[in-house]
Amino acid sequence: MLQLYIGNKNYSSWSMRPWVAMRQLGIVFEEVMVRFDSFAPNSQFKQTMRALSPTGNVPLLVHDGLAVWDTLAIAEYLAETFPNAGVWPRAVADRARARSLCAEMHSGFTALRSHCPMNIEAHLPEVGAKVWAEQAGVRADVARIAEMWSTQLQTHGGPMLFGAFSMVDAFFAPVCMRLHTYDLPVPPAIRAYMDRVRALPAVQEWIRAALAEHDFVPEDEPYRTQR
Amino acid sequence: MLQLYIGNKNYSSWSMRPWVAMRQLGIVFEEVMVRFDSFAPNSQFKQTMRALSPTGNVPLLVHDGLAVWDTLAIAEYLAETFPNAGVWPRAVADRARARSLCAEMHSGFTALRSHCPMNIEAHLPEVGAKVWAEQAGVRADVARIAEMWSTQLQTHGGPMLFGAFSMVDAFFAPVCMRLHTYDLPVPPAIRAYMDRVRALPAVQEWIRAALAEHDFVPEDEPYRTQR
Repeated sequence: MLQLYIGNKNYSSWSMRPWVAMRQLGIVFEEVMVRFDSFAPNSQFKQTMRALSPTGNVPLLVHDGLAVWDTLAIAEYLAETFPNAGVWPRAVADRARARSLCAEMHSGFTALRSHCPMNIEAHLPEVGAKVWAEQAGVRADVARIAEMWSTQLQTHGGPMLFGAFSMVDAFFAPVCMRLHTYDLPVPPAIRAYMDRVRALPAVQEWIRAALAEHDFVPEDEPYRTQR
Repeated sequence: MLQLYIGNKNYSSWSMRPWVAMRQLGIVFEEVMVRFDSFAPNSQFKQTMRALSPTGNVPLLVHDGLAVWDTLAIAEYLAETFPNAGVWPRAVADRARARSLCAEMHSGFTALRSHCPMNIEAHLPEVGAKVWAEQAGVRADVARIAEMWSTQLQTHGGPMLFGAFSMVDAFFAPVCMRLHTYDLPVPPAIRAYMDRVRALPAVQEWIRAALAEHDFVPEDEPYRTQR
């Protein structure tokens, strides 16, 4: 049995990626939610996750006692274990490109990630306008995302980045959440892709669960003082 | 024909990873060196790389016109294209673990990377001692590396992290360079693994070429004022 350990659905963008991918691709798993309280070593979250994985982070996939940590390693493990599930695009060149895009997300877009943390239930257009005006790094990140998505949608004709849904769309699903929460300006074709991602059944299910959490974690809330 | 675009061998830690992996695993490729001058959009480096890849970064693998950027995507492309080369460990569980470790390197160890940038020809033990005393993040990064490597060496008995050389050792080869340049304190078993990595023929070849560059790039030199 596969178990996927995740953090709060409202905040944990890295948890969202494998969860949405597995759900949307029909890979059955048990969800184990570990509420995030703090990154401090003695936090409940860190103590729980440290017992399961050397990094003490979510997401963590456990399969018959084998712990696979980090979203990219989870993606490759799923692709090997479920070769017909469509984790990656089928064509070699598409797959290489898909992995390049996911790797960009994995180590990049740091300005967008730090200034616009995922917060699904929040609606912060004023914060977004201020960040957009002041942070050149955020504008550069969004420009690269718009360029990337436009190229992919033109090449494959949509609806997803490589035609059919794959891990790449799951990797960028939290970006769609951020663009929405902070109402950052994007071209119409990008907005349309965002809306399609948000309408995916797995993403809808994740959003509904996030909205039902009614939690407020100060470490994840640089902008709000309360719900 | 495979072409691998890389930056200066003395400084470019990300370039070193696929170069060392391919050379050590016997995957034939043509090296294309693009001297790094600056990250500015109008720099020679960025203009050259931007024409080849959307991120404008090295390393970049080009195979019969297909561009694969980002080290992790290159690793997976090599593993698919040369399934018998030993890019990843053979056992499923080892491979999952190897990918988890590489993914940790890919997005983490930011304190070590920012305070101790790779600089193969430099010898900066005084800087290392100061960084070690002042930067808790560097001490935490090195502690995690020592824990990781110890676990792997005990599990597989060495000489490399999964017994035989694989992509994982290439991923951590630049860390071995940094620990050496800054003379950071590590346990004897970790020092012995560092020495074995530094003695690998591919790593020796890389080091010799780095030492022959005699270049000084100010953006890569936070500590030295001249060679």
